[in-house]
Amino acid sequence: MGEKIVIIGGVAAGPKAACHAKRLIPDAEITILDQDSLISYGGCGIPYYVSGDVSDEDELRKTSFHMTRDVPFFENAKGVHVRINTRAIKINRDTKSVDVVDVISGAKDSVPYDKLVISTGSQPFVLPIPGADLEGVYTISDLHKAIAIKEGLAKGQVGKAVVIGGGAIGLEMAEAFGDLWGVETTVLEFMPQLLPRIIDAPFAEMVKRHMEKHGVSIYTGEGAQALEGDESGKVCRVVTPKRTIETDIVVMAAGVRARSELARDAGLHVSPFGIVVNNRMQTSDPNIYAAGDCVESTNLITGKKMLAPMGSIANREGRVVGDNLAGIPSTFPGVIGSFIMKAFESCIGATGLSLESARAEGFDADAAITAPSDRAHFFPTETKMPLQLVFDRKDRRVLGVQAFGDMNDAVLARINAAAALIVKGGTIDDFSLLEMPYAPPFSTAIDALNAAANVADNMACNRQRNVSIQNFLSWIDDPSSQPDWATLDIRHPNEIGPFAEKFGSIWHAVPYNEIRKRHNELPKDKTLIIICDAGTRSYEIQVFLDSVGLTNTLVLGGGFNCISRMGVDWWPK
Amino acid sequence: MGEKIVIIGGVAAGPKAACHAKRLIPDAEITILDQDSLISYGGCGIPYYVSGDVSDEDELRKTSFHMTRDVPFFENAKGVHVRINTRAIKINRDTKSVDVVDVISGAKDSVPYDKLVISTGSQPFVLPIPGADLEGVYTISDLHKAIAIKEGLAKGQVGKAVVIGGGAIGLEMAEAFGDLWGVETTVLEFMPQLLPRIIDAPFAEMVKRHMEKHGVSIYTGEGAQALEGDESGKVCRVVTPKRTIETDIVVMAAGVRARSELARDAGLHVSPFGIVVNNRMQTSDPNIYAAGDCVESTNLITGKKMLAPMGSIANREGRVVGDNLAGIPSTFPGVIGSFIMKAFESCIGATGLSLESARAEGFDADAAITAPSDRAHFFPTETKMPLQLVFDRKDRRVLGVQAFGDMNDAVLARINAAAALIVKGGTIDDFSLLEMPYAPPFSTAIDALNAAANVADNMACNRQRNVSIQNFLSWIDDPSSQPDWATLDIRHPNEIGPFAEKFGSIWHAVPYNEIRKRHNELPKDKTLIIICDAGTRSYEIQVFLDSVGLTNTLVLGGGFNCISRMGVDWWPK
Repeated sequence: MGEKIVIIGGVAAGPKAACHAKRLIPDAEITILDQDSLISYGGCGIPYYVSGDVSDEDELRKTSFHMTRDVPFFENAKGVHVRINTRAIKINRDTKSVDVVDVISGAKDSVPYDKLVISTGSQPFVLPIPGADLEGVYTISDLHKAIAIKEGLAKGQVGKAVVIGGGAIGLEMAEAFGDLWGVETTVLEFMPQLLPRIIDAPFAEMVKRHMEKHGVSIYTGEGAQALEGDESGKVCRVVTPKRTIETDIVVMAAGVRARSELARDAGLHVSPFGIVVNNRMQTSDPNIYAAGDCVESTNLITGKKMLAPMGSIANREGRVVGDNLAGIPSTFPGVIGSFIMKAFESCIGATGLSLESARAEGFDADAAITAPSDRAHFFPTETKMPLQLVFDRKDRRVLGVQAFGDMNDAVLARINAAAALIVKGGTIDDFSLLEMPYAPPFSTAIDALNAAANVADNMACNRQRNVSIQNFLSWIDDPSSQPDWATLDIRHPNEIGPFAEKFGSIWHAVPYNEIRKRHNELPKDKTLIIICDAGTRSYEIQVFLDSVGLTNTLVLGGGFNCISRMGVDWWPK
Repeated sequence: MGEKIVIIGGVAAGPKAACHAKRLIPDAEITILDQDSLISYGGCGIPYYVSGDVSDEDELRKTSFHMTRDVPFFENAKGVHVRINTRAIKINRDTKSVDVVDVISGAKDSVPYDKLVISTGSQPFVLPIPGADLEGVYTISDLHKAIAIKEGLAKGQVGKAVVIGGGAIGLEMAEAFGDLWGVETTVLEFMPQLLPRIIDAPFAEMVKRHMEKHGVSIYTGEGAQALEGDESGKVCRVVTPKRTIETDIVVMAAGVRARSELARDAGLHVSPFGIVVNNRMQTSDPNIYAAGDCVESTNLITGKKMLAPMGSIANREGRVVGDNLAGIPSTFPGVIGSFIMKAFESCIGATGLSLESARAEGFDADAAITAPSDRAHFFPTETKMPLQLVFDRKDRRVLGVQAFGDMNDAVLARINAAAALIVKGGTIDDFSLLEMPYAPPFSTAIDALNAAANVADNMACNRQRNVSIQNFLSWIDDPSSQPDWATLDIRHPNEIGPFAEKFGSIWHAVPYNEIRKRHNELPKDKTLIIICDAGTRSYEIQVFLDSVGLTNTLVLGGGFNCISRMGVDWWPK
C-alpha cells in the first residue's frame, strides 16, 4: 500500500483533493474524515432546495450522472475511504496522526497520516445578541438545517421570515422564502446597502428595488438588536433600533469565518482570515495542505490577504492540492472575487473590486457606469443592462466590473470576460478591443463591456466629466444644496415633459439632435448636469459644448436607465 | 474650419470613425460618402429582419434611443456631413481628393481631403455558375436586397428556398426562411461540413442535426453547379452533382471578399485579403486610413494575415481610426476570430482556432472535448453544453474554444471568457483556474471552461488518451475495420441495455462504480473504448485501469452526450 493521505472535511475542497490525488497516485490510501453524516453536497444549492426549485435534498448530493455521493460511492467509484460522523479533534504533527471521535458512539481513535489535508470549511457568524439561541433561528451551515427549514415551510409553519444579513446567501434565502412559499419576508442589513463591499451603492439599490417589487421588505443600515421568543422558546420577534418585526423563523446570514481551530491548535500558521498556505496550498508544515473556506487567500488585485469562502474556489484549490500531493507543482495564485446572484427576475454579478473598495485600498479609482443593451437593440429580447467598469486613472488598469440585468446569462457573459482580463492585468484598452463574438441575438456590435471601456477611456482622458449618481440624487432631494446646478435634459421631448413640469426652472431641455443649433439658449452661469437614458448621448453633448466654450457641464453617467432601476421616490408617474 | 476628413463608406467602420473623430476634433470638417441611399445599418441584423423578429427595416437603422441614422441625424446630432448616392470612383493621392459620381444624376464632382478613411466594406462572392444572374438570386449585401426578399416572403411568393453556403449568414438566412415563414429550405455547403474552418466536424454535425430537426434540408460536400430559370427568367431550380432542387428563391452566401479596388487603383498596398494597414489602421499612404471589412487583419494566434469581415471588428477599428485622426496613437493589434450564432433553439459559438485549423497551421494541437452542464446539474434549467478546448501540447497554450448549447447566453459566457484569455496568451492552467462566478442558476462549481481545461491538462500530461469521435464513428460503421477494438460502457445498466443488445460481443458493460471490483472480467487482448455520457467518468476509469495494468484503453471524449446531439443513424431507439 502507498502513502496514507488523510483529509479532514468532506464537502468541497476535501473530496476534490481526495479524488484527484487518488487518480494521480492510485496506490495511495486516502481517507476523508467528516463529522457530519452528509458529505460532498452542493452547499450553494441550499437556497434552491429551500425554494423548491430543487425538489429533494438528495439532488444536492448527486453527481451530474445521478449517483449519490455517499460513503459507498466514494469507496466503490473513487477508491476513497470516507469516515462520516467522525470529528477530528486534534492533529498530532509529531506522530503524524489525527485524533478523532465518533460523534454518535463517543469512541475515540487515532488516524495516522503521511500527508494531511485540512478542508474544514467555514462556519456562519452568529450575532452576539439576545435570543440568538432560540428555536427557529437558523444559520445556513449544513444540509440538516436546510432540511429543517424546508420541513417547516412544507408544513405551513412559516408565514413570516426575517433574514439577518443582506449578502448573497441572505438574499438568496429571502427569495427562496418569498418566491415559491409566499412567506412574508424581511431582510435586515446592518450596512447602508445590500451586498456591501461586493457592489457599489447604485447597483445595490437596483437589487433592493427589484426585490422589494417582488414583495421582500428590506431595511438597510438597520441591524437586529435582539430576538424574542414565545413561551415555548421559539423565536417570534426581531427587534431593531427602528422597529419590531413579527416572525416565525430567523435566518442568520451575517457572514462566515474560517474554521481554523484545529490548525491553530496544531501550531500551524493561522491568520485572522484563515489557515496560512503558500501558493501550492501547503501550510507551515510541509506535510499538511489546506484548501477551501478555511484558508487565507491572496487578492490578486490588491495583493492583500482575505477570506474567499466560495465553493468554486474550494474546488479549484482542491485540484491544486491533489496535484501537489502527487508531486506535480501546480499553484493557486489567488482570487479576484467573482460573484453572481439570481434575484427573482434579475441577475447581479461582479468581479474584482467595487469603486468603494478600490478607493479604500488606495487606488486612484474611478467608475464608468453605463446602461447598454444586453443584445442588439432591435432584437426582441433586448433589455438594458447597467454595467460599471472600475478603473485606475493612473495606469488605466481595470480593477472591477459589475452588472445588473435580466435573469439570464447576459451578466455572466460579461463578468466571465472581465474576470479573465482582470486576472491578466487587463487595461481599459484591452477591454475596449476585447473580441467578444457578435450576433444580434446575443450581443451588440460594440459589446456592453467594450462600451463601458470606451466610457472609461473618455473619463481617463478627461474628455468625459461625470457627476456621480449619489451626488445627483442628493441634489434632486435638495436643489438648494447646489444652487448653481441645473439639468440639461437631452432626451426626446415626450420623455422630458413630466420632469420639466415637476422640476420647473432647474430643468432645461434641448433635444440631443438640436443642441448644435440651439446651444446659445443654454445658461452660462450654471453647472449643467447633462441627462439622457444611458449617458452616451450626454457625453457627446458634453464634448460638443466644450468645443463652443460651455465647459461647465457634468454627465450623469448611466443616465435615467440606471436611476429608474434604483426606484427613486421623486420619479414622475 | 479645421481639417477636412473624408470617409468613403457609411455602414459600420466609417460612421464610427467619423463620429468619434468629430468628438475628438470638433473643428474638423468630416464628410461620409456612400453610394447607397441607406447608411449606418446593422447588417448583421438582416436575417432577423427577414425572419420577422425585427418587424421593420428601419429598426436596423435606428439608434438604441430610437432615432433613425439618416443624413439629418448625422448632420444635426453628430456634426458629420453625409453624401448618400455618391460613389467614390477614384482617389487622387497627388491632389488629395476623391472623384465621385452621383449615382442618380450622373453628375461628377471632386471632394478634397486632408485625411481620408476607406471603409468600403466587403462584397459577397458570386459563384461563377450558370444562372447566377437570374431573377430571384440574391446575395445578402445590403438592406435593399433584404427588403426585396422580405417583400417576396410577405406576398407569399416563396414556398421553397435554397441557400448556397453553410456559413453563418447562410444558416441564419435558412433559419429566417424556415422558422417564421415555413418556407421549405435547403442549404448547400460545398465543404464536407457546415461552418467550415470555424468549428470542428462534431460541432458542425450538432448544428446540422438540430437544423434538420427544425425542417431545414442540409447537404454538405455538395455544391451548386447551375441555377435554372423559368421562361420569365426567374430562378426555379438548383442543380448539384447529386440532385435538382426546385426553388422560388436562391440566396448566395458563399463568403465575401474585401472591396479594395479603389485603394488598389490609387496605388495603396493591397493584399489578397484586403487593404494593408499598420496597427494604427494606416495604409501605405500616411494620410489614408482604412478600417472594416475592406482591410487585411492579423490573426493574433497564428500571426498570419486574414480577412475578418465582422461588424463588431469594424466598429472597434473605426474607433482606433478616430483616435489616430486626432493624434491619439491607439492601436488595433489584430483578431482572434470570435463567432456566435443562433440556430433555432440552439446556439453555437467559437473563438480562436478549430482543431483542424490549428493543425493546418502547424500547431501540435489536440482538443479536449467535453459535455458539461451549463449550470448546476440540480438546477431546473440545466442542460448539457458540449464544449471543446483546443490546445498546443508543446507549450500548453489554449488556441481555441467552441461550444454548442441551448439558445441562451450560456455559450456566449464561455466564449467571451475564452476570447479574453486567448488574446492574452492564456494556457491550460489559466483556463483551469479562471475565476468565473459561481451560483447554481448560472454555472457549476467547476465551470464548463475550467472542466475542459482540466481535461486538456490530463491529456497534455498523457494521463488521458482519447479516441476521436470521428474514429469511433468510423469503427461503429464498420467494426471489422478495427477488429481488436471493443467498448467498455460504464454507464448505468439501464442506459447500456439497448446498445449491448444491438452491438453484441463488441459491447462490454461494467458500471462505473463496479469496475474496481470487476476489472478482472475485462478482456486483456482488446483495445477498450471507454464510454460514458460526457467522458469524465471514462477518464477516471482509464487511470484506474492503468493502475491495474490494463493500459490498452481509449476514452471517448465528450461521450454519448456529444454523439447523441450529432444524430447518428445507428442510435438505438
